[in-house]
Order: sequence, then C-alpha cells, then structure tokens
Amino acid sequence: MKRLMNAVDAMLDESLDGFAAAHADIVELGADRKFVRRRALSRGKVALISGGGSGHEPLHAGFVGHGMLDAACPGQVFTSPTPDQMAAAIEAVDTGAGSMLIVKNYEGDVMNFEMAGELAAAEGRKIMTVVTNDDVAVPNSTWSTGRRGVAGTLVVEKIVGAGAEQSMGLAELQELGRKVNDRMRSFGVALTPCTVPAAGKPTFELAVDEMEVGVGIHGEPGRRRSKLASADAIAEDMLGAILGDLAPPVGSECLLLVNGFGGTPLMELYLMVNAARRILAGRGLKVARHLTGSLVTSLDMAGCSLTVSLLDEPLIRLWDAPVKTAALSW
Amino acid sequence: MKRLMNAVDAMLDESLDGFAAAHADIVELGADRKFVRRRALSRGKVALISGGGSGHEPLHAGFVGHGMLDAACPGQVFTSPTPDQMAAAIEAVDTGAGSMLIVKNYEGDVMNFEMAGELAAAEGRKIMTVVTNDDVAVPNSTWSTGRRGVAGTLVVEKIVGAGAEQSMGLAELQELGRKVNDRMRSFGVALTPCTVPAAGKPTFELAVDEMEVGVGIHGEPGRRRSKLASADAIAEDMLGAILGDLAPPVGSECLLLVNGFGGTPLMELYLMVNAARRILAGRGLKVARHLTGSLVTSLDMAGCSLTVSLLDEPLIRLWDAPVKTAALSW
Repeated sequence: MKRLMNAVDAMLDESLDGFAAAHADIVELGADRKFVRRRALSRGKVALISGGGSGHEPLHAGFVGHGMLDAACPGQVFTSPTPDQMAAAIEAVDTGAGSMLIVKNYEGDVMNFEMAGELAAAEGRKIMTVVTNDDVAVPNSTWSTGRRGVAGTLVVEKIVGAGAEQSMGLAELQELGRKVNDRMRSFGVALTPCTVPAAGKPTFELAVDEMEVGVGIHGEPGRRRSKLASADAIAEDMLGAILGDLAPPVGSECLLLVNGFGGTPLMELYLMVNAARRILAGRGLKVARHLTGSLVTSLDMAGCSLTVSLLDEPLIRLWDAPVKTAALSW
Repeated sequence: MKRLMNAVDAMLDESLDGFAAAHADIVELGADRKFVRRRALSRGKVALISGGGSGHEPLHAGFVGHGMLDAACPGQVFTSPTPDQMAAAIEAVDTGAGSMLIVKNYEGDVMNFEMAGELAAAEGRKIMTVVTNDDVAVPNSTWSTGRRGVAGTLVVEKIVGAGAEQSMGLAELQELGRKVNDRMRSFGVALTPCTVPAAGKPTFELAVDEMEVGVGIHGEPGRRRSKLASADAIAEDMLGAILGDLAPPVGSECLLLVNGFGGTPLMELYLMVNAARRILAGRGLKVARHLTGSLVTSLDMAGCSLTVSLLDEPLIRLWDAPVKTAALSW
C-alpha cells in the first residue's frame, strides 16, 4: 500500500485539518473534529446533516455549504460516525427549524443516526430522516439490510439542500428527499479493489482481466465477477439493471451522474457519459442534466457508477439552484 | 491495463463527445474534434487558446469557459496536438482582438503552437504566446528543453483568463502571464506509474516501496528514485525545492495548489494541504488562496504535485474573479 500519509491513525485528522483550512471561507471544523459545518448558518432554515465513513471524499464534507448540507460527520475510513458526533452536529447547526438527516442505507449509519435523532428529539428538537437506497445491484449486502445508499445520495443532498434554502419546511423536505430517492437508481462496476489504510491490503482481489459487477462503495461484492468488458457493454449492463428496475416512461427527463470511484481517469468517465447517453437515447430517455466526476469514491478503487435520476420541472429548478461547496459550485 | 474503453483508437473521440455533451451549456466541439471551444464568444476580447496531449484531464478542455480559455486543442494521449488543430482553433475563436497562446514547455507543444501562430500571423492575426515552465524538478527533461510546464499552467490560464474578461489587451496579457509564470514553481512526486492506453503497459516501473521524486506529468523521470517517505517528509522535500528556487520574501502571500495525478484519493491531497501549510507557515509565507484537486493529471498515476504561486493584490483580484468552466467554477 502506497499512501501520502504520516501515520494511519493520524490520517483522517490531518486530512480534515487540510480540508477545513483550504475551504475556510465555507466551512469550519467542530470541536474534536466531530463534524464539518457551514461557517454561516441561516436562521429559520431547516438544517441538513449527513455523514458516514470516510474514504468517499468529497462525499460528505465536500458538499457542506450554501445550497447543500449544513454539517457532515466523518467516521473513520469505511466506518460509521458515532451518535455522539451526529448529536454534536445537530446541536451546532439546528437553528430552530429542525434538522433533516440524510443517511445512506448502511446498518451502522442508520442505527447511529437513529440514536442521535432520538437524543435530539428528547431535547425537544424536530428531527426527520431520509434514508437513501439507490443501488440496484443487490437486494441486501454485507453491510446493509435492503439496498445500499450510494452515489445518488449527493443528488438528494443537492435537491433537498436547494429546497431548504427556499424555506421549505421539514416535512416537505422529507417528502422531497423521498421523491428524489424513489426516482433514482445507481449501479457500480470496479476494475480494481481499494485499500483501506488501516488494513494495508486490498479489500478484495480481482484478476487482471476481471471486474466486479455491482460493486458497493466499500468494495463490497456485487452481482458477479466477470471478465472485463468493453465500455459499451458495461454501460449496457449497468443501465439494463437501472432502467429495468426504475421502469421510466418513454420521454422521461433525467439527470445522468457518472461517478468515478477514485482511481479512474476523467477521460474514461466522459467516455462512459458518451456510452450511457447513447443507450439512454435508445430507450427514449432525455438526459436533461449531467454531473460527471469522482464525487462518491472508494479511496483508490478504479471503476465507476452510473446514477439515473428522473427529473421534472420542479426538480430541475432545484438542481439548477445555486450551490457553493468545496466540491460542487454553480 | 484495465480501462473503461471500447477501442484504444476511439478512446479520445468518445471521451470528447461525452465531455461536449455533458457541458453543452459551456462548450462545443470544433469540426473533426480539432478543438473544444466556448459556445459563446465575447467580441473584442482577446482569445485565450491552450492545448496539449490528452491524459491530463481536466486540463485543458475542462478550463474552457467564461473567465478562462476560449479554446483548447486536445492531442492524442501524451502527444502534442497538431498545428492544424491550433490554427483551426485560432480561426474559430479570435474575434479580432488577437489570440494569446498558453503553452506548456514541451518541445512538441512549443513547436506546433509556434507554427500555428506563424500561420495565423501570416493571415494578419495578432498572436502572442506565454510558455509556462513552472516545474523546478529538472533543468531539462526527456521531452523539454528547459523546465517543464506543469500544473501551474492552470494558474496562468485562470489569471490571464480573468484579465482577458476585463478587456486587457494582448501585450498586457502576455506581461501578466509571464509575471504569473515567473512567480510560481511546481514539484511532483509519483507513487505509481501511469499506463498509456496505446502502450498497454506502465510507462515506468516503481517498486512497492519506491517513489519517483520530481516526476513529470507524463511519468518522465525526476530527480531521483527514493524509498517512499512520510507525507511530511515528501512535502518538505517538494517545498524545499520550490522555495529554494523561488526565494520568496518572508511575509509573501501565495496560492497553494495541491494537484492529484489521477489515482490519488482526495483524502490524501487534503492531508498534503495540511502538511504544506505548516511548512509554508514555518517559512513565513501566508497561504492566501487554495486550490486542491486532480486537475492536471497523468491518467491513473498516483501521487501529487505542489505549486506555490506568489500573489499580490491585483493577482488575488484576478484569481477571485468569476469563472465558469467544466472543472473550475466560482
């Protein structure tokens, strides 16, 4: 394992310090680095809080800022943050209008956010939750009951974030988040494994001519191990799974998110955009919006996921609304 | 070699098509994919044109748009674009105020841009050039006479781009570009090699405990092969070379660009930000602006470069000026 690091145990702290310093105009660190929060809060706005294991950067801290999250809790690599972190984040950014917790469907995350939410509710705070589960690859997984929440989570964060800026209330935002989650599906393929620093060796093995089809964002197993295929064949396979499950009406408009897992050159991601567009057009879908980049990563894993998120006019307006975070800005 | 691709020969074209489709609000492709250009040109503004081998994405096409480039010419992977491509780009985006060519110091790029510039000048167009050579690692290299132009090139593109939007003339922009280039230095370290798709095997070999110190953005040799060191020691080494050459006065303000080479997790880049900030503070330098990300890449190479670019008030204003491109937006 080759890493730009000093010591495994210090890696997350040093990285968070660098992140906070580099984006000091937007964020600040909570005490003991329990969370990354917006520097400037809007009183009366519902607070949006997410979090999860580290190693998926820029998710989630990179999405803290105007138009998206108010706080993000970073766990250790591929490890849920603690309820204590989440409770501290809620305490710091809930200005009275309540807090919306956006949680990827992994057992640790769901359990810990639930505990934190109950603690906060017991103190009289209004708390609601949206759990994302956009990954169609497997019905249950190593780390989740039900489908995993993966790259589409950022779409929920962006759209619900825009709604919160526009003064939507807590219940309305929950409905919006669930609507977005219900209308999107993701599917990932890994060409190489990732290496968790504390483990020091790859999380799984892949032969030089193999890929993991339906991989999770921690390198968890997907549907099958296959021979490496062409980009077109991979995109067909991924979109076959996505559209087979989503069953969008012909003529639907969608957002196409092509997400790199960390070790994939951007040139390949745009090549996948091209392949996916052609297939979607063939199915009668219109790609109304694009997002392309390594945004929900698995350390240094090579490969990508595709997310198709159905849009309507209100969702397009919310997607297009201004955002200013470390990782997304328009 | 594992790649998301269909055929090596089609890779660049398919990727460019995906890029142009994903960012159709900002760019369009020239005929035969000779260049990527801004969709909307400003009459009377000096045109900024860059380009170079592909495999460094998002450089340069990802920097086409308001506040940066008007056009970028993509060569094949790690291969200069042709004079024909550059001449076509100049023809397409020069609206009469002249064209500024921003060229990384590699022999092929310099020669081809020179030929294209002469062709355009012979047709009565005003052409000036800024050649970047920010890499302090080696005095000459495999592919360059003199220092290589690397990640700092994007700083020149951003600042000169802002100047062009503010109606600076061609000569003034050339002076500005040279000023930025003169006041910045870069240094890179590779932890793994990269693999050019057409070659199918790594461009160089590195043992599991080695790094290439002073590597170029094509994986060209640097100063030496060393045992992998801690992030702090690497940052010391890199900044020692940069500051030793730049010799900035104590109290200087700078931009710190921590650039990933493509295969480096963002978590590690921010850890390097943290290490670099501490060292710069120890030398009496103030980091006034940050940019962190995989912006000038070498396909899937792991490692990073640091760039220190000295700022003054006018340069900070130009850096902060609005930009709207695929890869940078604020």
